[in-house]
Parts: sequence; C-alpha cells; structure tokens
Amino acid sequence: MRELRKDPIIKRWVIIATERTKRPHDFINFKDESQAVFCPFDYGNEHTTPSEILAFRPDGTEANSPGWWVRVVPNKFPVLTNEIEPERFGHGMYDVIKGFGAHEVIIETPEHDSYMATMPYKQVKEVIWAYIKRFKELELNKNIQYILIFKNHGKEAGASLSHSHSQLIATPVIPKRVAEEIKGSKSYYKFRERCVYCDMVTQELSEGTRIVEENDLFLAFEPFAARFPFETWILPKKHRYNFGKSSTAEIDKFAKVLKNTLFKIYKALDNPPFNFMLHTGIKSLKDGEDYYHWHLEIVPRLTDIAGFEWGSGFYINPVPPEHAATFLREIKINEEDFNED
Amino acid sequence: MRELRKDPIIKRWVIIATERTKRPHDFINFKDESQAVFCPFDYGNEHTTPSEILAFRPDGTEANSPGWWVRVVPNKFPVLTNEIEPERFGHGMYDVIKGFGAHEVIIETPEHDSYMATMPYKQVKEVIWAYIKRFKELELNKNIQYILIFKNHGKEAGASLSHSHSQLIATPVIPKRVAEEIKGSKSYYKFRERCVYCDMVTQELSEGTRIVEENDLFLAFEPFAARFPFETWILPKKHRYNFGKSSTAEIDKFAKVLKNTLFKIYKALDNPPFNFMLHTGIKSLKDGEDYYHWHLEIVPRLTDIAGFEWGSGFYINPVPPEHAATFLREIKINEEDFNED
Repeated sequence: MRELRKDPIIKRWVIIATERTKRPHDFINFKDESQAVFCPFDYGNEHTTPSEILAFRPDGTEANSPGWWVRVVPNKFPVLTNEIEPERFGHGMYDVIKGFGAHEVIIETPEHDSYMATMPYKQVKEVIWAYIKRFKELELNKNIQYILIFKNHGKEAGASLSHSHSQLIATPVIPKRVAEEIKGSKSYYKFRERCVYCDMVTQELSEGTRIVEENDLFLAFEPFAARFPFETWILPKKHRYNFGKSSTAEIDKFAKVLKNTLFKIYKALDNPPFNFMLHTGIKSLKDGEDYYHWHLEIVPRLTDIAGFEWGSGFYINPVPPEHAATFLREIKINEEDFNED
Repeated sequence: MRELRKDPIIKRWVIIATERTKRPHDFINFKDESQAVFCPFDYGNEHTTPSEILAFRPDGTEANSPGWWVRVVPNKFPVLTNEIEPERFGHGMYDVIKGFGAHEVIIETPEHDSYMATMPYKQVKEVIWAYIKRFKELELNKNIQYILIFKNHGKEAGASLSHSHSQLIATPVIPKRVAEEIKGSKSYYKFRERCVYCDMVTQELSEGTRIVEENDLFLAFEPFAARFPFETWILPKKHRYNFGKSSTAEIDKFAKVLKNTLFKIYKALDNPPFNFMLHTGIKSLKDGEDYYHWHLEIVPRLTDIAGFEWGSGFYINPVPPEHAATFLREIKINEEDFNED
C-alpha cells in the first residue's frame, strides 16, 4: 500500500507507505534495534542497492561497479514510486492520491566515515552537482509538483545508515510547508513589492549578530525566529528563485558556505544529529519568480519535540539565535584543510 | 530572556525562553543526562514545587502539604509568565511579543508509578475536572488568546519527569496549528454548512474500520490521514465547541474513553512514549461555535521525524490507520479493573 491521504481540515497530506515497515507489533521496543554493520553504500556493494540512476565515475568504468565518487540510486524502500499513475479519488469525505512520485538516495562519497562537514570542498561541490542534475531531470515530469532534497544525519535525525547520503522525494502535490512559504512571501511581496528573503538578507547583513558564515554570493545565519537551537539558514544573497538554475560560480560558493557551516556545527556541537532541507522554486509552480527565494534550512536535533509543539505548531527554543551565532562564529576554519590536492 | 518571535514568512511564532536551558555548549552530549531519582511530585515534596494554584484535597489539609489527589502548580521553569505584560514591538522587519502567558503543571496523582492508562476512571475524571477549572479561569484573562492542555509521556516524548502529569500553556496569540484548524473548518462550513468534525464522526461511525473505542458521547478513532502509527483522535460525537463548557456527564464519559484508549495503546505497544494535545474553541476566538469542534489528539512517538517531514510538512506513516485500529480494538478491557472501590 502506497497512497497519499489528505487531512480534510488543515489540508495536510500524509503518505501511507507500508512497504517500509511491517506489522503493528514491530513497533514494540523497535527502538532497540541496532544498526547493521554491512553498508550498501561502500565500494563493492553496489549490487545491493537498486541500479544507479546517475553516477559520477571515471570513463570506462561500468555502472554499479566501484570507482564512482557520487552515486544516485532509487531508495530501496521508496515511499513513492513512478511505477504507478498519480490517480486521484475520493473516499467518502476524504481525498486520496495513489502513491506516485520518486524517492532517490544521493550517496555523497564512497568513504564510509566521511561527512559533508569533513570532506573536501570539491567533493561537496560534486554532491551539489548531483542534486542539480536530478532536480532538473525530475522537474521535466509534468506529474511532479515538487522535489524536496534533504539530508538526515545521525540516528536521532532519522538516518538509518551512517554512510553520508542525502535524499530526494518528488511528490505529486506541493508540500504544505513550501506552500505556506510561497503564500507568505507572496503576501509580503504584495504589500512591499520586495522579496521577504531579500529583506532578511539585508537586515541580517546590517545587524550582523546572527551571521554564522558568508561569502560574496551566500549568507548563512540563525533566523530571528529560530525554532531550534542552532537552526541555520543558507540563502543566496541575490534574489534567486530556482535552485536548479544555479550557475557554476553559485554552486562553487554554495558548496563552500554549506560545508563551512556544517563544519562549524560539527565542531561546536560534537557531530550532532541534524537534518537539512532545500526549499526552492520549481517550474511547476508557474508563479513565484519575483517573490520566492531558494534556501537551505539546517536543523540540529538537540531538543525534543513535545506535546506543546505538536499541539500548537509553536516551538520553544532555549537558545537565542544571537547566542548560537556567536558560538558558531568562534569556530575557526582553516580552508587549506579542505582544499584537496 | 523570554519572548515570542514571529517568522515573517509563514507567520510561525516561536518562544525564546532561556530560563530553561543554559549555555550553547550544554547541548554537547546533553542526551546522556540521566533522570533524577528525587521526584518533586511525590507526597512530602510539595515545598520543592512553586506554590499550588489548585489542589483537590481533603477539607482541613493545608496548601502545599500531602493529602491532595490532583495538584496544579506553576511550571518551575515557565516558558511564559504572567509577571510581564504582552507588549508588542518590532525589530526591523521582525515582530516580537514579550513572553507573557502561563505555564502550569497538572500533577495527576500522588502515586509515583501510576499512569493515566492504569489509574482508576475516577482519578482520570478528577484530572479532567482540574483541566476544566484551570481552563475556565485562564479563559477570563483578556490578554490570553489560547490555552493548550497537553501531555508528554516518556522521555522520548519530552517528559523530564516520569511521575504522571499534564501541562497547560496559555499564549497571547492563537497557535498556528489551531488557527489552521479553525480556518480549514470554517472554509468547509462555508461550502457545506456542516462541521467537518461532525462529518468525520458520521463517516467513521458508518465505516467502523478506524474506530478504537467509543461510548454514547465520545468516539476514539485513527484519523484517515494519520500522520503517525497509532495516532488517535477523541471527539465528542455531538457538536461541541468549547471544552470548558463540558457537562458533568460529558466529563465522565470523556474520562472513560480517554482512559480506555490510553490503556489500549499502553497494552498494545508496551507503554510507548506519547503526547496528547487538546484542541478547543475558546471565548477569545469570538467566532467558530458553528464550525469548530473540540478534540484530543494522541500521538505515540514510534517513528522518527526526519528531514522530509521537517522540510515538507508531509508525514510518512508506515502503518495504515485501519491496521492500527484493528490492532487496538483487539485489546480487551475489563472495566471492573478500573472501577475503584
């Protein structure tokens, strides 16, 4: 069973995907399961993943063999799949869509113990190129409304394998969170005729107190209304709508600011579990070029989400973003360490 | 520092409350902290909590002394407090409100190892009465826009003490989640001239496949678009807007359905961590009596929330609500066990 169901009240979609987990009683004490030692993302184990969709590998090496430096494969337990049509139907008062979409894994490095925080800039850049390539290809599919690129790092952040990887899920509807951002930035634009994200960049640069890292094209900062301790956003300084249209120079500079930011978090908080999510404009939205602005949100998983947060959509953050930014700015980076030979 | 800050894009408020936690580096490996053995909610330790706001106790016993059966105290580390005014101000493009509100703890029983799932019906009823009393009193405060009653059970669900308790947070703004429900149910009402929750009750009763527990006044079921395995909602079967106006008969029947539902979850999933949240109409909303409907949402914490969920607002649920409901319905309850002498 794989279907999307819509909450009739707040229009929140959920994906019911039973291929991933099994029977109800598997949840009893499931948290005790230990992680497997075998890693399907290591060299030599390529045959244990579904066949690769994209790989950066030397000319002449065979698909699904070692030698690659970035590799993209379908998720072995996809929550959505392109093997079915996105048929819509009703179930009494409820709405359902068959589980159409895509679910891919971007294996960021063949090195089992390397993280985005610790790998060379060049490798991070290659990962971003893989994101761009997959994004642009999936964007062409008319049934796909959105493509979310994200990363789970650490068990507490939902990673089931420790080998560094990101994921991509393409959905037949616009996710609620993204729709909210689009709606909010549109209403801001109507009022001020400016992009709200551009205004944030301006205010953050002028205040300076929440900045974590920057270069000429990108800014990493703790948002003023940060939900979580050390929540960090990365934005292009200039107005940019569609991540997939990034220039080579932008990809270079994005890789650098992303890597430095993750390194600071890694150092400051001793390799904490975290998630990041890329929010971007996309062709299917049709509208939004003027007022929506792509960005990446990093959320370290340091605090528990409890009943108040679930019940209210409010978050309680015990660390003011200004303090978190000061703490992260103090971490020094020797860029030479990450400029590969 | 205690303030509410608003995300300028999606209008999400966050509470920055530094009184609860300390310095940024306290987050390093903080997860290893073990729980204290001393329990401030046990008899004899009343002086270690802030002074009680409400207690059900025998006539003639002194405030803040043993003998009580339900006790309400201010949270020792309140995220919001009524000691300041809810002053609003701007910070450049950002909005801020001083951290006005209330944060209370409802100690549900003097028995250290009793849970709502295992205590007698009578005790659950008393807890509901305490909710009602606090709700009605706080509802009179004109600066309070909303009162969220919720429960964190188990460490993974955010409970810092294992002794059975609920909490209440009163806020100077309507929480986003509640505002969304109100908006959604209003738009449904405009279209159909019926309450969306009443329609759900009708469909759930007629289908039967997602029902967990019921009596003549209340229904507990797995929502069609459940975000989480074993997510369960409890609703009054008849249209009821304001929880605070519940009749004695309704309180009796709500206590019973709540207790039975929690017992089934407790038994079926071996005492899992969970949260519950009460969503209700409230005087300050002014509008909504026709279309909003109070309800309680129970979310067992069995799956990890990862990057996809954070980034999209979409949830992936590996257990269809129909399977979860079947599994819970199979748990038999001997009501005699909970009818106290």
